[in-house]
Amino acid sequence: MAVKFVSERNIKFLLYEVFDTESLTGYDYYSEHNRKTFDMIIREAVNLSKNLLYPVFSEMDRKPPELVDGKVKVHASVKTILKEFGKGGWISGRMPYELDGNQIPHLIANACEFIFAAANYSAAVYPGLCAGAAHLIQSFGSRELFDTYAKKMLSGKWQGTMALTEPEAGSSLADITTTAEPAGNGYYLIRGQKIFISAGDHDCAENVVHLMLAKIKDAPWGVKGISLFVVPKYRLDEKGALISNDVTTAGVFHKLGYRGCPIVQLAIGDKNNCRGWLVGEPHNGLKYMFQMMNEARIGVGIGATSIATAAYYASLDYAKTRRQGRSVAKKDPFTPQISIIEHADIKRMLLFQKAVVEGSLSLIMQCSRYVDLITALPEDKREKYNLLLEILTPVAKSYPSEMGIQSVSQGLQCFGGSGYCDDYPAEQYYRDARIHPIHEGTTGIQGMDLLGRKVAMQNGKALLLFNAELEDAVKTAGEFPDLAVYARQLENARAKLQEVTMHLFKIFQDKGAEVFLADATLYLEMFGIVAIAWQWLLQGIAVQKALQNSSNNKDAFFYQGKFAAMRYFFGYELPKTIGLAERLMRGDGLTVEMTAESFND
Amino acid sequence: MAVKFVSERNIKFLLYEVFDTESLTGYDYYSEHNRKTFDMIIREAVNLSKNLLYPVFSEMDRKPPELVDGKVKVHASVKTILKEFGKGGWISGRMPYELDGNQIPHLIANACEFIFAAANYSAAVYPGLCAGAAHLIQSFGSRELFDTYAKKMLSGKWQGTMALTEPEAGSSLADITTTAEPAGNGYYLIRGQKIFISAGDHDCAENVVHLMLAKIKDAPWGVKGISLFVVPKYRLDEKGALISNDVTTAGVFHKLGYRGCPIVQLAIGDKNNCRGWLVGEPHNGLKYMFQMMNEARIGVGIGATSIATAAYYASLDYAKTRRQGRSVAKKDPFTPQISIIEHADIKRMLLFQKAVVEGSLSLIMQCSRYVDLITALPEDKREKYNLLLEILTPVAKSYPSEMGIQSVSQGLQCFGGSGYCDDYPAEQYYRDARIHPIHEGTTGIQGMDLLGRKVAMQNGKALLLFNAELEDAVKTAGEFPDLAVYARQLENARAKLQEVTMHLFKIFQDKGAEVFLADATLYLEMFGIVAIAWQWLLQGIAVQKALQNSSNNKDAFFYQGKFAAMRYFFGYELPKTIGLAERLMRGDGLTVEMTAESFND
Repeated sequence: MAVKFVSERNIKFLLYEVFDTESLTGYDYYSEHNRKTFDMIIREAVNLSKNLLYPVFSEMDRKPPELVDGKVKVHASVKTILKEFGKGGWISGRMPYELDGNQIPHLIANACEFIFAAANYSAAVYPGLCAGAAHLIQSFGSRELFDTYAKKMLSGKWQGTMALTEPEAGSSLADITTTAEPAGNGYYLIRGQKIFISAGDHDCAENVVHLMLAKIKDAPWGVKGISLFVVPKYRLDEKGALISNDVTTAGVFHKLGYRGCPIVQLAIGDKNNCRGWLVGEPHNGLKYMFQMMNEARIGVGIGATSIATAAYYASLDYAKTRRQGRSVAKKDPFTPQISIIEHADIKRMLLFQKAVVEGSLSLIMQCSRYVDLITALPEDKREKYNLLLEILTPVAKSYPSEMGIQSVSQGLQCFGGSGYCDDYPAEQYYRDARIHPIHEGTTGIQGMDLLGRKVAMQNGKALLLFNAELEDAVKTAGEFPDLAVYARQLENARAKLQEVTMHLFKIFQDKGAEVFLADATLYLEMFGIVAIAWQWLLQGIAVQKALQNSSNNKDAFFYQGKFAAMRYFFGYELPKTIGLAERLMRGDGLTVEMTAESFND
Repeated sequence: MAVKFVSERNIKFLLYEVFDTESLTGYDYYSEHNRKTFDMIIREAVNLSKNLLYPVFSEMDRKPPELVDGKVKVHASVKTILKEFGKGGWISGRMPYELDGNQIPHLIANACEFIFAAANYSAAVYPGLCAGAAHLIQSFGSRELFDTYAKKMLSGKWQGTMALTEPEAGSSLADITTTAEPAGNGYYLIRGQKIFISAGDHDCAENVVHLMLAKIKDAPWGVKGISLFVVPKYRLDEKGALISNDVTTAGVFHKLGYRGCPIVQLAIGDKNNCRGWLVGEPHNGLKYMFQMMNEARIGVGIGATSIATAAYYASLDYAKTRRQGRSVAKKDPFTPQISIIEHADIKRMLLFQKAVVEGSLSLIMQCSRYVDLITALPEDKREKYNLLLEILTPVAKSYPSEMGIQSVSQGLQCFGGSGYCDDYPAEQYYRDARIHPIHEGTTGIQGMDLLGRKVAMQNGKALLLFNAELEDAVKTAGEFPDLAVYARQLENARAKLQEVTMHLFKIFQDKGAEVFLADATLYLEMFGIVAIAWQWLLQGIAVQKALQNSSNNKDAFFYQGKFAAMRYFFGYELPKTIGLAERLMRGDGLTVEMTAESFND
């Protein structure tokens, strides 16, 4: 049997039975697509993953990038991957037709990204960054920048990156010190250092194009003085030849996982000969970059879901084939041992994984649908979806990242001792997955973004819309007798979350911002569980509809499994919100009061 | 500043202020010890760790064991470590005086084990296994076996192991197929395969002595037919020279972490020339082995606590020195960046770690005290402590293992991107820690041991004693006004746990063993949180006493930190039991009903 890292059946369930992707073709922008082209794209993504990405999944990990004579050598297959992704239109797929794209809905494109990353997360990052960087130029840069840089990235010839972090400014972008000095010829001279830049240099692309944050001399202090530049590794001379642009790789990091892709430290303009081209207006860089960052945050959610999904199927396969022990009800040693999937505790660990990964993917698809509506609808009808996307982005980034780690860990546990050894892929998934709560804004930062910004934005409008989405689902679910109890549970959890939110804003008034935000990470956790419960209820509704529409369903097992995973989530995961609410309602400022000295002993 | 991996202050707080180790010297068995010798031992253990173990912590990971020409090569320092541990009496310390031991209390010996493992977990395993194997022979083997094998292990010259697991019998020992055939000369011929044997072969000991489970031909089926043997790698010929005993190393596993110590696969008696010597009576092997396993389970709890403790201090050090961002209350970019320990969310992650690791260590010390009382008291007064030790062993194994992983992960998170790179030790701790929920009985098995065996044993007597211990602590705490609220919380949690337990036994009667045990892992989790809350209340009592006894305390910061960590545990961790209880009270048999086919899609 071939290795399974995703379920096409589940992807199609979400696309067509939960999120009605076909309805998008009713909008002008997506009118040239249809179910058949969607299915073909998904099928192709799976094939490409099976043939190109999965075969080097383990090998790319075991032969990580090396810095040799100032050059970063990565696994040779990266060259083929970028080429094939460029040629096949996988990088440019979301671009509009007029820029040689295919206007593929984000629901479909993100499903493909999910498939690629499930096959080989590190490999999927290279083309993913190209797409993100090109989109940033498309959105805010000049046509000239697009033609010169973005096109090359969309073709997979040049690597794109996002270059934000600096040694002394990780999460605190206000403190970046990379400078840009106008040179008078349409470009700036860039100087500084960047750190932890994914795919920031490698030998499988002809050039590397950094979308880089820097401060123009005499710019305002803090985040208001940040501008965005295109800074290539090689620039074009007058004759169109590539020459060095004074960007050197100072180091490549040895990482716990995610080893197929280098993260590097860059020295920029050491010889004062590094040119950068401004994207958009000066001092608006962070605003622009937030587009790419928000996409990247959803992208992290996708990557986290992907890794956990692949780990789930690996552990499921092992649990079905490995024989060990007997039922606790009949331990007769004369009987043969049973498959470990027959043990309730193994099934619990598998259901936990299923509930987490399919719930996460559903939330990702939900966000993708919002992006599609924003893209397809006229400007005056977009606000609702923009706000929903804003409030859900930190959740779609963090829930899969944090719970993906737990999920992969339970997958590893299903393997017993074998899970700890590299004869099986579990240990690599465990290492790979750990990056996600860190990059593109740590979980702590997502919590503060959610509670400190998104919940309060426009007088709580985004939160109101989120509540309305849940109430809609509760109402629809109420029409199905088998869902009534879960609908009620979600409604209670939603109301509790609302109560907690109100209470926290009271704390803000009474005790100030620090105490208010002290438990933002726990608030994010609670919000995430409620959001995933909502997604499971939506899936439960789709299951009920499917069962109504067909009395003799060939997918009976699939729907049974879905329903069980939904029950699992409501039975085992949703109750966690009770303890979280208990804590969040306290708001005693313990962590704010605690002094650094009290950690001494 | 030297690297800090443990806090001597905290160890002494637990030893003397919480568990009154000095009172042990009132018993005959421990009468030759005093506070001064205890302190000296602890000091020496720290020095040995700093000088011998920590310096190779990272290197042993980066140069893992290799199988070269049938021999397992490990890091050369293992030889020195075994030698020094033998010479210094660290392996034989717990042995009685008449066997050249020092009758060191387990409270002290386990504190040392904790210190060693915090410095270098892999390194600490080698001497630890020698001590466990020697103790097993001492308890159940003949004097001759002791003199021939145990003495060599206690001196650090020969390696001891526990050889239980087989390729087709991991957690299911009933199914081992290694056989033992009486050869008529006082020995048996052993044949079979063993897998995942820690320190099962290496080139830094002159010999390896396996305490091995096997079935004598025609023995009863299942676990009742298991016997225990001493099976050395080399046996002694008539002249006392070491000759091959037909035990060959078939492979060494490449592991996620814990890389400084090999785990190997052994082929035993391939040439039908492997001799094993029976320990004790035939068919009693599993009962004997349970002594070593129970010690090893506490040992796993110690190892897990150690790794998480070292990770905590590494992250604390980083948090104090790394400057990044500003207070959420005053974000003025003109002010300098602050140490990240000033951020509430970082303090929360540090307090979480502190609450987990110091709570875990306290539970380990509690169990050690029970062992000391069992050792020192006359036989008719031991039962209470035996039962308490029995019921707490799965908890002392699992809580540190499972929560240690979470703790290390939060430690890694404090480092941001640097935590994911091997310039800092966080990533190694993250890999090392993951073994603990697996070896010496997975968490799932501990859950079934607790709920299916320990809670019910002797009509619930162990559980009654556990409840009485908690009620004692609650009563004492009630005398301190500052503890009243926490005492009440613990009392409520204890009562809830009791209610859940009763409910589960009702489920057992109504629905049978499978549904009863289906959520045993969650029961273990809830039990663990309540047990650690108890330990924190005991620590809280000690803090209050210390503050009463001295108005001008030089340890003010230490006690403040302790009190804050206690508050953290009651504020953030104990509420998790509410959701767990909610789930456990449901008992709907979801995971039992779920069929393997429903995972298909």
